[in-house]
Amino acid sequence: MTTQSIADFLEELASATPTPGGGGAAALMGAMGAGLIAMVAHVTVGKKGQDMQLQEMEQQIKEAGVLRQEFTAMISADAVAFDGLMSAFKLPKHSLDAIDRRALAIQQGYQDATEVPLSCIRACLHGLALAHRSAEQGHRNVLSDSGVAVHALLAALRSAILNVQINVPAIKDQSFVDAALNEVRAAEEEASASAAMTLDVVNARLS
Amino acid sequence: MTTQSIADFLEELASATPTPGGGGAAALMGAMGAGLIAMVAHVTVGKKGQDMQLQEMEQQIKEAGVLRQEFTAMISADAVAFDGLMSAFKLPKHSLDAIDRRALAIQQGYQDATEVPLSCIRACLHGLALAHRSAEQGHRNVLSDSGVAVHALLAALRSAILNVQINVPAIKDQSFVDAALNEVRAAEEEASASAAMTLDVVNARLS
Repeated sequence: MTTQSIADFLEELASATPTPGGGGAAALMGAMGAGLIAMVAHVTVGKKGQDMQLQEMEQQIKEAGVLRQEFTAMISADAVAFDGLMSAFKLPKHSLDAIDRRALAIQQGYQDATEVPLSCIRACLHGLALAHRSAEQGHRNVLSDSGVAVHALLAALRSAILNVQINVPAIKDQSFVDAALNEVRAAEEEASASAAMTLDVVNARLS
Repeated sequence: MTTQSIADFLEELASATPTPGGGGAAALMGAMGAGLIAMVAHVTVGKKGQDMQLQEMEQQIKEAGVLRQEFTAMISADAVAFDGLMSAFKLPKHSLDAIDRRALAIQQGYQDATEVPLSCIRACLHGLALAHRSAEQGHRNVLSDSGVAVHALLAALRSAILNVQINVPAIKDQSFVDAALNEVRAAEEEASASAAMTLDVVNARLS
């Protein structure tokens, strides 16, 4: 899916077909956040007088690279999970056994379609922690890019939360639902605090 | 730039080269927001029993399409403005006249590089107003997509604000700076209120 041009991706996003949709958009926002953190570190390494931070910047480039791979894989994973759910709905209902198998497949489909945004949320929390180090230690010239990374990652996380919330009412496994909703609540709290703290660093260094 | 693959765009975003950077990322987030609003309207039109909203949905598709074009054009415009500023810095300084011309070109470059995020901010405000109509009138199945549009547009707007803020300290025309900072303050206030109101609609309809 990431071999597609940006224009084609946006065209499909805007079309009536359900994928790519909000899940793919969330993953792409996360990937942009990770990409910007790597850019800030690359630029910082290239500036004179930053030798002390070389090791830290190389670590940020490495972690941001892994995160970006995770996020870009989620763009496709989200579409695959959604298509799986749609296929489950199309299973035959010609016997009681078939009806049971279909119902099970639908439940599995909803859980799979919920696991992708949950992975996205976890990657965003990691990205936000990395963005904090980026804002504190990156070069001042690219400080706004660390800030944009925060906004992109927070938007990705909150978008992924919506994608969890729209799926859970259909899931009958209450322990799965409770675990997902607890994770979502904790993630929103952690992400809000982390983003606010990092944006304070950005604003303090900007002024 | 939008003929580029998503993977290549992300690779360049992550590289040491300054464009695409936070400005391009902001514009792409805005374009995704506009794209999702169009998707919600397309899906809503396709559902039975929504005949009453046909005209409104077609209006949303039209407005979202124009907005998406504006945002995608900004991805390139941001890079062009930044490259213009970099070229101004490279102008010769061999005479007092040349030094004056270079200083003027740099000032113009900073103003041009600030106009792009200001345009992005205006488009995001329009997008957020459209997202509110989308959340209120779109089909419930794609309600989370209206919500993702809000997060993407708010992140784009706040990212564009950072791109204004990092440029203004270099701009000597105080009336330009004052106007830009006043616009930014008003936009943040309007966008926060609009996004909160729309997310309340999304949450109320989700539960």
